[in-house]
Amino acid sequence: MADEALFQFLHNELIQYVYKSAEQGEMENGRCITKLENMGFRVGQGLIERFTKDTPRFKDELDVMKFICKDFWTSVFKKQIDNLRTNHQGIYVLQDNKFRLLTQLSAGKQYLEHAPKYLAFTCGLVRGGLSNLGVKSIVTAEVSVMPACEWSFVRMQGLV
Amino acid sequence: MADEALFQFLHNELIQYVYKSAEQGEMENGRCITKLENMGFRVGQGLIERFTKDTPRFKDELDVMKFICKDFWTSVFKKQIDNLRTNHQGIYVLQDNKFRLLTQLSAGKQYLEHAPKYLAFTCGLVRGGLSNLGVKSIVTAEVSVMPACEWSFVRMQGLV
Repeated sequence: MADEALFQFLHNELIQYVYKSAEQGEMENGRCITKLENMGFRVGQGLIERFTKDTPRFKDELDVMKFICKDFWTSVFKKQIDNLRTNHQGIYVLQDNKFRLLTQLSAGKQYLEHAPKYLAFTCGLVRGGLSNLGVKSIVTAEVSVMPACEWSFVRMQGLV
Repeated sequence: MADEALFQFLHNELIQYVYKSAEQGEMENGRCITKLENMGFRVGQGLIERFTKDTPRFKDELDVMKFICKDFWTSVFKKQIDNLRTNHQGIYVLQDNKFRLLTQLSAGKQYLEHAPKYLAFTCGLVRGGLSNLGVKSIVTAEVSVMPACEWSFVRMQGLV
């Protein structure tokens, strides 16, 4: 529980710092999101190397996604992804009904507009992880009812 | 191990981001250290509330310091402080022979000058934790041989 809190608090500080330093330099919201996403990407790259050090080679892309849903998600967020859907053509939708970095926000619609800044780092985190496993993708996140979150992964065909 | 890595990578990103945004705004090194220290302070305040939720009340200041050396340090850095010395008048020196956030740096003298930025957050972390336990203090860190680190705590008499 302590570890969870450490990550969560540090993540909050990071968001606050990025947005605060943006205010001073008149950086717009979009660039803050990009910065958080990039940081997540690098952390994800590093993490996946540690995580998969002793894992057997993945069979296919679906196998990789299952690893992300189970092992990766559990390590970082202390729970598994609740639902994984795919069209078997490179699009995956992962649903987390209680995304940890959103649980601290009020569940109403009031703070819905603030959700993207709490998702950007994680988008990057997973994109970085996938990237190091050979799956170049675009990752987006959507929240309709807090703290549930849906992550969409679209494989970028040309780059693989 | 995965949790450790997450904290470590995130901590690195934080340092890099603070120093990078400082370059753009021409902020000097000292202010970066202060920023990292302040972030640590707030995280420490939050953490100690979680950690001590079910802990019996502390007997005295030494008891608080022992808690920091054992439970707090283990939760955050996965090992205990190796040595605690005190003059019983408000000065405490904690020695960590293998400080986790320094182990990634080369052990030679080459990177000794970079050590302070890897210590600032933790200085704040412990100062924040102590502060919420009623011990206002000044925390400094010193490295003579990497990755060993000595933390000095001086209680601020007037403020308690």
